[in-house]
Amino acid sequence: MTDKLIPDLEMNFQLYDVLHADKLCEHSKFEEHNKDTFSATLATAEKIATDLFLPHNHIADKNEPTFDGHKVTMIPEVQVAYNAFCEAGFIAGRYSFEDGGMQLPEVIMTAASAYFMAANPSTTSYPFLTSAAANVICHFASPALKQQFMPRMLTGEFTGTMALTEPHAGSSLADITTSAVKQADGSYRVKGSKIYISGGDHELSRNIVHLVLAKIPGGQPGVKGISLFVVPKYRLDENGDAGDRNDVQLAGLLHKLGYRGTTSTALTFGENDDCHGYLVGEEHHGLRYMFMMMNEARIGVGFGAAMIGYRGYQYSLEFARDRTQGRHADHSEPSKPAPIVLHGDVKRMLLAQKSYAEGGMALCMYGSHLIDRVNTCDDTEEKHALKEMLDLLTPVFKAWPSEFGPKANDLGIQVLGGSGYTREYYSEQFWRDNRLNPIHEGTNGIQALDLSFRKLWQKESLGLKILKREVEHDLSQVVTPKTGAMAKELVHYLTALHEIIVHVSGTIKSEKQVTLLANAQALMNVFAQIVVSWIWIRQASVAEQKLIAGNATEKEANFYKGKIQAAQYFISWELPTIDRDLKILKQDNDVCSDMDPDWF
Amino acid sequence: MTDKLIPDLEMNFQLYDVLHADKLCEHSKFEEHNKDTFSATLATAEKIATDLFLPHNHIADKNEPTFDGHKVTMIPEVQVAYNAFCEAGFIAGRYSFEDGGMQLPEVIMTAASAYFMAANPSTTSYPFLTSAAANVICHFASPALKQQFMPRMLTGEFTGTMALTEPHAGSSLADITTSAVKQADGSYRVKGSKIYISGGDHELSRNIVHLVLAKIPGGQPGVKGISLFVVPKYRLDENGDAGDRNDVQLAGLLHKLGYRGTTSTALTFGENDDCHGYLVGEEHHGLRYMFMMMNEARIGVGFGAAMIGYRGYQYSLEFARDRTQGRHADHSEPSKPAPIVLHGDVKRMLLAQKSYAEGGMALCMYGSHLIDRVNTCDDTEEKHALKEMLDLLTPVFKAWPSEFGPKANDLGIQVLGGSGYTREYYSEQFWRDNRLNPIHEGTNGIQALDLSFRKLWQKESLGLKILKREVEHDLSQVVTPKTGAMAKELVHYLTALHEIIVHVSGTIKSEKQVTLLANAQALMNVFAQIVVSWIWIRQASVAEQKLIAGNATEKEANFYKGKIQAAQYFISWELPTIDRDLKILKQDNDVCSDMDPDWF
Repeated sequence: MTDKLIPDLEMNFQLYDVLHADKLCEHSKFEEHNKDTFSATLATAEKIATDLFLPHNHIADKNEPTFDGHKVTMIPEVQVAYNAFCEAGFIAGRYSFEDGGMQLPEVIMTAASAYFMAANPSTTSYPFLTSAAANVICHFASPALKQQFMPRMLTGEFTGTMALTEPHAGSSLADITTSAVKQADGSYRVKGSKIYISGGDHELSRNIVHLVLAKIPGGQPGVKGISLFVVPKYRLDENGDAGDRNDVQLAGLLHKLGYRGTTSTALTFGENDDCHGYLVGEEHHGLRYMFMMMNEARIGVGFGAAMIGYRGYQYSLEFARDRTQGRHADHSEPSKPAPIVLHGDVKRMLLAQKSYAEGGMALCMYGSHLIDRVNTCDDTEEKHALKEMLDLLTPVFKAWPSEFGPKANDLGIQVLGGSGYTREYYSEQFWRDNRLNPIHEGTNGIQALDLSFRKLWQKESLGLKILKREVEHDLSQVVTPKTGAMAKELVHYLTALHEIIVHVSGTIKSEKQVTLLANAQALMNVFAQIVVSWIWIRQASVAEQKLIAGNATEKEANFYKGKIQAAQYFISWELPTIDRDLKILKQDNDVCSDMDPDWF
Repeated sequence: MTDKLIPDLEMNFQLYDVLHADKLCEHSKFEEHNKDTFSATLATAEKIATDLFLPHNHIADKNEPTFDGHKVTMIPEVQVAYNAFCEAGFIAGRYSFEDGGMQLPEVIMTAASAYFMAANPSTTSYPFLTSAAANVICHFASPALKQQFMPRMLTGEFTGTMALTEPHAGSSLADITTSAVKQADGSYRVKGSKIYISGGDHELSRNIVHLVLAKIPGGQPGVKGISLFVVPKYRLDENGDAGDRNDVQLAGLLHKLGYRGTTSTALTFGENDDCHGYLVGEEHHGLRYMFMMMNEARIGVGFGAAMIGYRGYQYSLEFARDRTQGRHADHSEPSKPAPIVLHGDVKRMLLAQKSYAEGGMALCMYGSHLIDRVNTCDDTEEKHALKEMLDLLTPVFKAWPSEFGPKANDLGIQVLGGSGYTREYYSEQFWRDNRLNPIHEGTNGIQALDLSFRKLWQKESLGLKILKREVEHDLSQVVTPKTGAMAKELVHYLTALHEIIVHVSGTIKSEKQVTLLANAQALMNVFAQIVVSWIWIRQASVAEQKLIAGNATEKEANFYKGKIQAAQYFISWELPTIDRDLKILKQDNDVCSDMDPDWF
């Protein structure tokens, strides 16, 4: 398989032609940067990903980390890749210069992450989790706590984790029972169990900094009584280095279906009543802190799902070009088998994959660029409005690619046929790895509830108003009959969306609310397919303008035509699937809500 | 997890309440049988499946067969299970008394297979493949050849395989190159390579009888030049026992994503120019023979997919009943976590699984009962008509459950959340195992082409006429408003189906034919969803009658209500998804067919 993880044409198209990411440099925040520094960053990411992450993706899958009761062991390639990632400064990439970072825009960091996620999502998760954990500390910890942990996390000397989930509570954080009791010295003693903690133990770094949600006795019940703590694997010595072992134990490794290179752990805190933790921010505000960093994390999961989908798409495309079978449909060359990429049903499966993978990629890059727009917006009102749109779209950024990325990988297997079902080919690993994404970082069911019961209505639906403004602006840019027809189709569904939101706003306040709890996935489908259709029309519209400009090389012209065709595929094959969901919502369909568990 | 593979209520409902399988005993062919002999057969199947197949399903997955260059080794439990299956007479179950069989109806054999497929599809495949191969020999081989191989296959002393696929040709059997040259003694020397041959080597039986497709030099090119041969691993000695080694070599085992207990092999025939094969039937008619046995094989694959889906559904249901998280939607018991089976989105995922798994089960049992109806029909014209309907529906029997069974298993993982992503739970094995079914026995893409370009039009669409008759009969049996509403919805789509078939009949003869090649999956969706909706209304209608009769126990009443609710789910959530496909077909949508491979 090709080592070219993402064609430059694709990356430049997304970053510059569609998003005009270089314009971010006009803002003081990014004034030290320009297209050249961005390109240099991406070239470094591509090189490290290709040279050090890609080669062991399959090896790590076959040789997952083991635990002998004392230490976690993994293949040595992971350490080499991790070190290179850290040395290139990528963990700190998004942090300010004063924090020792490169002060790069989110969208550039996301673009850089594309190479790592496509190459090897398992190894990538160690530095990514570290960057995400450092981000929480950066924003909410006291200066002293920040100073103790953040610098060493940004260099990769310490890694980080997010320790939220508990064995009995799963998605229901209100029910966690890990406790934290304040000590005379201001620190806390943490006690409890956490599960599914990715990167929860390993020997890649000198210390592991767990961000632990726990309850301080006496606090309110439910989510309002949750606080956030820094709990290191090793306490710090007087030099700030990893010192004595803290009372955090690896209870065991979980054996996952995919993402096997990443340790997934069950951790015990305070088994010997000596687990030191340090409060982040104020008591009882822990969940808020975690959720304020959630937009980035959720875009990251969605983007990863899109990139695994993308790699699977490229892999099956390459196979389809090589593999001959059957004959040309036009009966030319009746004596010679045709490459299967010429067969209609294979083209359908490849177009679907392309529309899912590149759609998810464009969606999440739009999302991370939106974070940059929020961060660089100097108009308070507009900044607030953009932030609301970001909040509204976040469940889509997470859930849509993590539903459709795996679908792409499933089609990837089907294109390979019998070969796709064997472990001699890579399609099956992409498919297994990606199956995690609909589950973690808030299951897609949770995302649908978040959208349907909270985000759509937040701040009097300001996010929705701004989204409408953005979509209408883009549709007004459409110039040719081809994209015009797509825009017309989308306008039809935008009207339907408006109507259904009015309808649902009534349902939500009535006794029929329970039907929406069961049908939230239908509302997510409607909303997300419309959003992704818009994202596809944006791409097609830009591609058309490029073709009209008339100076594209043949290769570029093919690329632009592919974008337009994939957009047409999405608008005619995928968007209309929401007719079913609109019907369900309009009916307040109660088939699922009325189902009595005894009837199963 | 429960060891009860299939509730008796479900099995009896399908067999007797819906299909009236006991009425088959009124025909002379099955007059030796009655409901008691059927029940005894199923009880034996359930016992062997539960005691000897189920316990090693997971163990075999973790310890797949290995090949040391001489012999294939597998866990010993497989042999024990295989022997018990053979000793109970199940390989011969469907064969006539004179052939040493039990002369049981297909639908009873299918029902028996339900237990084995739910328990352990990998181990089940060895005897199933043997029965299928013996079936071809039974129907088409000369009496002498039949006498040599069939009796020992029916006792399980010899196993069987279907050796069709070649490395370079895949789905394209016209391009196979394995050759067979006639010798003075009437036998042939076979030479070539086959791949993905399930059960192609192992030590479970004293001999392995390969049914090999090959070309006799001088025959026509393409499929008309294909002949069928019996090629044993060991030639027979004077007593008919396995004697000298034939020149068939195991080139290697393939390492599959799932179904790991079944050896998937690359075989070499005639490497030393000494591979003896024996012609089945006449020269150049091989493909026809294989395809005449294809209906049974394809129903078998579809049914297996449904049963893996069913087992995954039951597993996730059990989990959802046990697992508590969050609160009741009705705010009762605010202090106590609720079992997740009470949550709307979980009920949706369980109802979807139920509708896919039980829908596929009912569909394929309808199919195997249809074979019995053909076999016991004494009216030549009606027999011919039923046979046409069977041919028409066969692509649906194979493709629908093998698309929706895996979807059920995917939802099964999602219900388990993080647990579903670990190998500590079984959901992921069901999901991996079932991924094979859309690929083998004719990929689902091939099934869609078979339906769209052949089966719908065969014998002036006689099959379609008979299907319409059957559906209309069932819809006339509907008595209450609930099923009445479902029937009304289906009638709407039956009209749409009629219109689209008229439309497609025009497309197929025009230059737009190429669009249908790319859109065949859309036509399959339309047709199959309508068929399965009918199958669900049949079940709901019977369930309603049972409820109306008023003598159901509480447990039975719950079961019937569940059937009605699942039917409603299918009609309101799944059937309308074909609106998209109808649109695509009506438009002769050319997005996929027009895609130039250079644009990807």
